[in-house]
Amino acid sequence: MITYDLNLRWQAGDEANELMTEAFGNLIYEREKGVAGYYNLPVNSKLIVTEVQAFMASSEVVKKSDTIVVIGIGGSSLGTKAVDSMLRHKYPNAKRLLFLENPDPVDLERKFSTIEKERSIFIVISKSGTTVETISIFKAVLKRFDIDLQSDDKERVIAITDEGSALCHFVDTHGLKAYTIGHNVGGRFSVLSSVGVVPLTIAGYDTCSLLAGSAKMVERFFDAKEEHMLIKAAFIATNWREYRMNVLFAYGNLLEDFTKWYVQLWGESLGKIDRCGNRVGPTPIGHIGSVDQHSFLQLVMQGPRDKSVTFLKVEDFEKDIKIPDINLEHIQKCDYVNGRSFNELLNAECDATMESVSNEEVPVDMITLDRVDERNIGELILYYELLTSLVGSMLHIDTYDQPGVERGKKILVEKFGR
Amino acid sequence: MITYDLNLRWQAGDEANELMTEAFGNLIYEREKGVAGYYNLPVNSKLIVTEVQAFMASSEVVKKSDTIVVIGIGGSSLGTKAVDSMLRHKYPNAKRLLFLENPDPVDLERKFSTIEKERSIFIVISKSGTTVETISIFKAVLKRFDIDLQSDDKERVIAITDEGSALCHFVDTHGLKAYTIGHNVGGRFSVLSSVGVVPLTIAGYDTCSLLAGSAKMVERFFDAKEEHMLIKAAFIATNWREYRMNVLFAYGNLLEDFTKWYVQLWGESLGKIDRCGNRVGPTPIGHIGSVDQHSFLQLVMQGPRDKSVTFLKVEDFEKDIKIPDINLEHIQKCDYVNGRSFNELLNAECDATMESVSNEEVPVDMITLDRVDERNIGELILYYELLTSLVGSMLHIDTYDQPGVERGKKILVEKFGR
Repeated sequence: MITYDLNLRWQAGDEANELMTEAFGNLIYEREKGVAGYYNLPVNSKLIVTEVQAFMASSEVVKKSDTIVVIGIGGSSLGTKAVDSMLRHKYPNAKRLLFLENPDPVDLERKFSTIEKERSIFIVISKSGTTVETISIFKAVLKRFDIDLQSDDKERVIAITDEGSALCHFVDTHGLKAYTIGHNVGGRFSVLSSVGVVPLTIAGYDTCSLLAGSAKMVERFFDAKEEHMLIKAAFIATNWREYRMNVLFAYGNLLEDFTKWYVQLWGESLGKIDRCGNRVGPTPIGHIGSVDQHSFLQLVMQGPRDKSVTFLKVEDFEKDIKIPDINLEHIQKCDYVNGRSFNELLNAECDATMESVSNEEVPVDMITLDRVDERNIGELILYYELLTSLVGSMLHIDTYDQPGVERGKKILVEKFGR
Repeated sequence: MITYDLNLRWQAGDEANELMTEAFGNLIYEREKGVAGYYNLPVNSKLIVTEVQAFMASSEVVKKSDTIVVIGIGGSSLGTKAVDSMLRHKYPNAKRLLFLENPDPVDLERKFSTIEKERSIFIVISKSGTTVETISIFKAVLKRFDIDLQSDDKERVIAITDEGSALCHFVDTHGLKAYTIGHNVGGRFSVLSSVGVVPLTIAGYDTCSLLAGSAKMVERFFDAKEEHMLIKAAFIATNWREYRMNVLFAYGNLLEDFTKWYVQLWGESLGKIDRCGNRVGPTPIGHIGSVDQHSFLQLVMQGPRDKSVTFLKVEDFEKDIKIPDINLEHIQKCDYVNGRSFNELLNAECDATMESVSNEEVPVDMITLDRVDERNIGELILYYELLTSLVGSMLHIDTYDQPGVERGKKILVEKFGR
């Protein structure tokens, strides 16, 4: 179960109420007309899980593998990584997921040195099929591990891409196993498509429950409207010029990759030129509690009132360590947590920080997971995706494109003197 | 060598010139009067290195250890972690540094399971001596690894804290080995004090060169003024209301922890109420290229013009992997990097992104390290510390305090019903 509490210090007026009604209608339209495909993934991807499970049952290569190497960047890795980071501690027997993302020689060398071909599955993921980082790393992997696509090696290689892409044609040529994404599912909305479901299922995670949790969120939203989401979206969309940043302050290291996924989802979806030609969009920032209470918090407390803060808390980590009832001479000042647990301390810090930030009149809200499990993660993913679509609709932008990143790519090609 | 290039699209007027002159004078004053102690660390900490080296030569416990467990949070860990992350790949034989920072039961359990007492040194670091997270984790470590401070075990424990702190008194009681920090060295400015120098030296890093690089930067700054720093500081200080965020876009995974250190340094130092009672301060944000070109870049390119971007690049990683000259059927579009290297690709992406961002009239600057070594890291640390002091002086704030975080701590104690 997830609970959502708002303390935004803001009341929706007539204009905001209109925006909410309009945005809700837009999302119904987007879903019905297939403008954005992610709404239907929780249901549609169940088929992929079934298919992957059948493949796993029949593939000796998969059975003998303990590592899934995911070659992909941005939307092709962030979501899978986020889910893996959140669930890993509960699955001691899950296969290792190793992400080759950045074309960074030091990082690649370090990761390459931990890969054994005979115990690995290689999943190359590129929506466009021509992501230069991903294709270059894929080539380096083929060479480094002497993977011959004419031989049995090809059973270790899976591709995930859009139908009709260059990578898709490559796959056909070699008869590789492949899954498609769907043209109306953007990279940053693709974690519940084959992009996330294939590697997570092969790794051993219960992706059925992940999809079930997300399906329920879609249902609840379209049936019951989830008014707290509409209000939060309207607050962000109408106040972003004052509160230019939204800080996702997540308590627990296992949530760090989720904050990175959120930053991509918001950054690429909402940083746009709107239909009137204005540059718009709030800036997403991720932080981890309680570590960043010792870093970013001072700025939130006494710096300019240009941020809203969303706290993300896990009620029960289901693993806990007691703080021993030890009295250290002269340091008794810290004894007030003796006999309590780290889970309690972390959450009390979250609550205390939210209270102190809110007392400074900073708009805050809190998302509380009763625990980290597949259903809650599925719900949380959909919560953020729906929220993003709502804000995008209210900002009058195209939430699903990313025209701004093309220019850098062109300059890159020129630099290499093509 | 490090080069600094500015393309801020801004000219300093009379007012800004005055600010620069005044700030430069203020820093001279701060250094001479000991207002901030970090200016002298590059010279003063050489003694600590010598002492630690003597201790290492005589301690059997250190010789038999392969892990340094650092128990500390915020300023007590971020800087050390940043240096470790940047240098690790060059020191295959360095002792492992393991950071116990967050009071997060899942993270602690995972790390505890990798610790063997007989092969570990435990360094507990708290400037105040009463950081509740750190002291609680220290207690858990004492219990978990059955460390008896009345026995020989105490040779494995080192404390780093302010003179006269509660932890300092505790250390005296038990006759533990300890190093002090200096009252005028704030946590976030302490990486070149005993806080960073002790664990990094014991791990096996060449901290003498680190200090030499930083000493040279202090010298150059006070002798030759390093005008580019004054201009950048003046730009930030006079334009932060328009350019509310500074994004440090660092190319290379090994720089990620450095961006976190930068976020703390700026966030805690510059997010303040100024002498006129105004809430001021730019917001620091860290991102990693090329990964976050697939995430945050769209927002920088087409979102509101409320950010400046600093690019951080490493000319030569000294480890490289060639992109094989393989032709993949149908994906020839990516062949333009064939035969080049990942180092080249990463840096070309950095250059292309800077160019495309700058074309959008976003103020940018670039910091280029010819390579990652101790001297360059030392210089980079001092560059950022001096820059922070300059901006703080120009914003008319106290750069070195952090009053905003105290309220949350009080609420925390109340929550535990003391």
